[in-house]
Amino acid sequence: MHDNISFVEKCLSSQEVFSGRLLHVFKDTVRLPDGSESTREYIKHPGAAVVIPYCGDRRILMIRQYRYPVGQTLLELPAGKIDGQDSPDATIKRELAEETGYRPGIIIPIGLIHTCVGYSSERLYLYWAEQLQYAPLTADDDENIVTLEVPITDAMQMVYAGQITDAKTLIGLFWAEKIINRQALLGQAKL
Amino acid sequence: MHDNISFVEKCLSSQEVFSGRLLHVFKDTVRLPDGSESTREYIKHPGAAVVIPYCGDRRILMIRQYRYPVGQTLLELPAGKIDGQDSPDATIKRELAEETGYRPGIIIPIGLIHTCVGYSSERLYLYWAEQLQYAPLTADDDENIVTLEVPITDAMQMVYAGQITDAKTLIGLFWAEKIINRQALLGQAKL
Repeated sequence: MHDNISFVEKCLSSQEVFSGRLLHVFKDTVRLPDGSESTREYIKHPGAAVVIPYCGDRRILMIRQYRYPVGQTLLELPAGKIDGQDSPDATIKRELAEETGYRPGIIIPIGLIHTCVGYSSERLYLYWAEQLQYAPLTADDDENIVTLEVPITDAMQMVYAGQITDAKTLIGLFWAEKIINRQALLGQAKL
Repeated sequence: MHDNISFVEKCLSSQEVFSGRLLHVFKDTVRLPDGSESTREYIKHPGAAVVIPYCGDRRILMIRQYRYPVGQTLLELPAGKIDGQDSPDATIKRELAEETGYRPGIIIPIGLIHTCVGYSSERLYLYWAEQLQYAPLTADDDENIVTLEVPITDAMQMVYAGQITDAKTLIGLFWAEKIINRQALLGQAKL
């Protein structure tokens, strides 16, 4: 097997071709391993965090919200983008509070997800949260979000039936099922 | 629970703010459910397909390739973007042949994945493939790709150890483990 080095595409020049409120799009000229040049277009992303909020009794807290890019209301795990110099830990506590009103007693990192390796630099940190306490915020209610407690077996049935399609949520639910059934252990993650 | 209608963000105007070789970025002005206006930035994506190529004997065909947006060589399932009017079926057969040299005797749809609902319209179709025959192409060798046969138990150990991070690959491997262990059935997908 080749090692990492032989595959590397070297950046020759980088240009920001769109700078928006949310998206920052770059077009780089790169040197390929065979010596030729090509271009790479991608989104430079600040990173994000997603959480499996465990309610106990084999139940997961999920949210339902409208997603404009796909034109659908989707059932998801709470998640959000990292702001400024925030840590993934701080991000997931903030997003969980803003989106559901719950504060976790414990958060445990599970792993790192590269959301979209073809065209985004996004690194998405997956967490487990438990000992949830309800302490709703009054502000930041501009997202139209509904919160639901879903038994893990019901969530998995929705996965098999094609009723849950969001990538980060699929990964989180497969992990959640293993953790709840004690087929995978928490606390060994390297983030 | 609210129904879909109450959440819908209505498009008031749409502008293509970057048109590249790969990426098409849009900025839309939308009417929110509360009547106010906001903007939404997102990538309009042609869709893609990803495949679990099953070699038999509890082994999956995987590929290793360098991904410029994340600056790493990653272990992934074969996948690719839908070209023009191609179907997801045709796309996955083409990508499997181009990336691994294998042609499947059978492909079976598993489900739909929304890769990145925050900022992309991408719909990613997940397939199972088996009865693989090796019949390599000579052309289209510009991607630096290494093919590996990986036992599903080894692949899952890499998932737990944080050595596999690509989102579509994580979802595919969780599905593959269930299919191989006969905990989930093929052939019931609605794509």
